[in-house]
Amino acid sequence: MTAPGTTVSDRDGLASFLSERRRVVEDALDALLPASDVPPARLHEAMRYCVFSGGKRLRPILALAACELVGGTVEAATVPACALELVHTYSLIHDDLPAMDDDDLRRGRPTCHRAFDEATAILAGDALLTLAFEAVAGAETLAPDVRAAVMLELARANGSLGMTGGQAADIEAGAGAADIGAVTFIHVRKTALPLRAAVRTGALVGGADETELEALSAYGEAIGLAFQIADDLLDVTGTEEEMGKAVGKDVDKGKLTYPGVVGQQAAEARAAELVQQALASLDGFGKRAGSLLDIARYVVERRN
Amino acid sequence: MTAPGTTVSDRDGLASFLSERRRVVEDALDALLPASDVPPARLHEAMRYCVFSGGKRLRPILALAACELVGGTVEAATVPACALELVHTYSLIHDDLPAMDDDDLRRGRPTCHRAFDEATAILAGDALLTLAFEAVAGAETLAPDVRAAVMLELARANGSLGMTGGQAADIEAGAGAADIGAVTFIHVRKTALPLRAAVRTGALVGGADETELEALSAYGEAIGLAFQIADDLLDVTGTEEEMGKAVGKDVDKGKLTYPGVVGQQAAEARAAELVQQALASLDGFGKRAGSLLDIARYVVERRN
Repeated sequence: MTAPGTTVSDRDGLASFLSERRRVVEDALDALLPASDVPPARLHEAMRYCVFSGGKRLRPILALAACELVGGTVEAATVPACALELVHTYSLIHDDLPAMDDDDLRRGRPTCHRAFDEATAILAGDALLTLAFEAVAGAETLAPDVRAAVMLELARANGSLGMTGGQAADIEAGAGAADIGAVTFIHVRKTALPLRAAVRTGALVGGADETELEALSAYGEAIGLAFQIADDLLDVTGTEEEMGKAVGKDVDKGKLTYPGVVGQQAAEARAAELVQQALASLDGFGKRAGSLLDIARYVVERRN
Repeated sequence: MTAPGTTVSDRDGLASFLSERRRVVEDALDALLPASDVPPARLHEAMRYCVFSGGKRLRPILALAACELVGGTVEAATVPACALELVHTYSLIHDDLPAMDDDDLRRGRPTCHRAFDEATAILAGDALLTLAFEAVAGAETLAPDVRAAVMLELARANGSLGMTGGQAADIEAGAGAADIGAVTFIHVRKTALPLRAAVRTGALVGGADETELEALSAYGEAIGLAFQIADDLLDVTGTEEEMGKAVGKDVDKGKLTYPGVVGQQAAEARAAELVQQALASLDGFGKRAGSLLDIARYVVERRN
């Protein structure tokens, strides 16, 4: 799937933009996480193993880009951006557990409960979620009202009415009826709300006004839905090597997926349409929105 | 074990004080938790099943009492108090999981993964932890800097250097050598830091000065350690009916406990000594500290 208007130079520019921002985020994550030899060492090893496993860092990069777009600095948004990644990592660790999706491989390496053990994986997830809030609560470069707003954003998007609720619905749905309502319920909560929160977090730190916040929220929700449809499609069309995890598992497990409900072609069309919506929602920012526009296209073009 | 200076009227007064505060906290918890029929309903049912299971509400009651002691109101401290209970409930759900302590019974009822299933129990814990931060972040009756300070307190006490780290060390220790250093490492993190955080949360909301905060921190840490020793002792001397959960399990599992390391008599003496320390640390407050003094005695006298 190739989104219209993408050139090779956009992609080169995007690659270097992404890798530079990734470094900023990874340095800050390294500073936030206790060292591997701090007791209990096994827990801290597991936390670091999962956080530093070659993730795309999409959520923190979205936050940094949104913050800059509304006039904030990368520095101000770095700790909140890390918090987003810590929450994302926790959610992957718990989703992979035997009682949940029971996955052995994540980003080409054994999942946390495989590399360590189940108890350590549960606790590593718990500790990363807690650390996300600790980092923002203690971010002295941010005014207290911004810290509170960011934590409210993070918590709402990821609680029982957000991501955790989406995962619960996903597991309950299992081999249920193919229903576009059910799949949308799950996608909104599991992916769209957290990505929307990532963009909004950056916007809040950068001091966005109401109009900017609304435009960025619409963008975040649209790319979130597109991202999840692309993920479902990659489970069908991707290879294990590209994805760093088992593919075809959704189908094997009778999981509710977008292409499973509407077919591959309609799913591709819907993802492209969502990217167009995302691009359109940033019209008011003009060319300044460049990196967020590039990311929106990348979300459906990526091969992992 | 009877702490010196306790009279029947103290105990009657304490009972009515505790039950009144318990009601305030439970009404507020009810308002914070999504209704059982909000989708995903099974997740919300599980969250409510665990939060409303007859807990002592010790942490929130400590927060309310500390807040009042330094001149704050019960109203101001109610939401932070609820957050403490939500974090406590999440920790019990995850501790009970098959991969952790593998407990079937909690407060006389099936544990969460027994009453529901393992995936739901993991997610219910995750959602309660997230809701704790959501509640404080959105507590509009508190100034943003107080909200941030409370969340920092909560997160630090319960992360990998606090409660979660204590649980990890507890599981790792297993049938290891009986070592007073190891058992203290675990007790400080699993119980003392969270109870200290409960008292400090109330103190922060009530606007405590440095001297008050220090005195209350010392009190919280001492009753936390006393509470955990009392818990270990109840596992030896209590009945399943009193405790609402299996007893003698620590010994069966080769768990590191205080009486297991120093013997029952020395453990009782240490608990009594910690209670005296807790009482002494509040000397500066005089008679106004009445309810916290009563709670310190209750912590080691309780039968469940």
